[in-house]
Amino acid sequence: MAGRRIESLERLIGELKKLPGIGARSAERLAFHLLRATSEEAQCLADAIMSLKNKVRHCSQCYNLTEDALCQICADPTREHARIWVVEQPKDLMALEATGLVGGVYHVLMGHIAPLEGVGAGDLTIEQLAERVKSGSIEEVVLATNPTIEGDGTALYLETILEPLGVKTTRLARGLAVGSQLEYATTAMLEAAIRGRA
Amino acid sequence: MAGRRIESLERLIGELKKLPGIGARSAERLAFHLLRATSEEAQCLADAIMSLKNKVRHCSQCYNLTEDALCQICADPTREHARIWVVEQPKDLMALEATGLVGGVYHVLMGHIAPLEGVGAGDLTIEQLAERVKSGSIEEVVLATNPTIEGDGTALYLETILEPLGVKTTRLARGLAVGSQLEYATTAMLEAAIRGRA
Repeated sequence: MAGRRIESLERLIGELKKLPGIGARSAERLAFHLLRATSEEAQCLADAIMSLKNKVRHCSQCYNLTEDALCQICADPTREHARIWVVEQPKDLMALEATGLVGGVYHVLMGHIAPLEGVGAGDLTIEQLAERVKSGSIEEVVLATNPTIEGDGTALYLETILEPLGVKTTRLARGLAVGSQLEYATTAMLEAAIRGRA
Repeated sequence: MAGRRIESLERLIGELKKLPGIGARSAERLAFHLLRATSEEAQCLADAIMSLKNKVRHCSQCYNLTEDALCQICADPTREHARIWVVEQPKDLMALEATGLVGGVYHVLMGHIAPLEGVGAGDLTIEQLAERVKSGSIEEVVLATNPTIEGDGTALYLETILEPLGVKTTRLARGLAVGSQLEYATTAMLEAAIRGRA
């Protein structure tokens, strides 16, 4: 492409292509969009990127994303601090929080145990979770990991760590997805629904 | 979402959502990706955006994108400066240039005549094209507008402007599917259109 002669255009296309889900075509389209956009609009986007990197950090207690030392959930005295909801990622926390049904606080593991990807228990915030359980008067730890092989494995491991500490652990219920069709449910979903029937 | 509490994250998601083809989900995924990326990687992207806006301008002769006063094609003495290929957008120029079959130089109209969108002949670089034809010894003007209603209309208008100036005008052959966009044409399609021009 003649485009390669315009170095800064090619450079931006190259950077955009590194982003997940952005292919060569999309990167080109985005770059041309930014070229047509006003300098203010482009500046806003560039500033937002750098502001994110400079301001957002992890809560020193639960590892949720925050712009302060303690996230707003941990800093909120009206939350049930005796109930810890353990999730894999900040995104999972947001999904649960969006339901408005979680009155407790969270603990973000920052991933799941995945030996094939070289992620061991030591790479997650499991030790910090154990410390929280030991130091506070925790009543319940809800293991809200993903219902996947890795999520289940991580939850099982957490149970072996938390059980000796004398804290009650629970898991999110699993079964049929609400609103789904039984005929399209996977065997794994049906099995969970049948075994968990009540 | 609890995410709204992290202002800089929400701000970036908001900025990303403004981009074409980026919905709420994609914007969130991209923002989380940048959050995980190193500061250097984020800085590279932010810099590339600003560099694009600061450095790229239009060629003073043909309105192609360039970082210099004259684009590399106009500045190239080995090109056929007597043959001007007229396109609607820089993207169209790049598509033609990628075939390697255009020995001439270009003229970018910066759009097409579209009365319903309020784009008249005066909003394009048609006058500048006429000046180029008048001042230089131009042998041929290839009207390589898109094979769409607006592109055809623009080409017809250009013919009425250029004919009195005594220059030969040609059109790309109808190897292109009517209604399609030049920038998405395959090289084979473009090649057929270039070779069949008359």
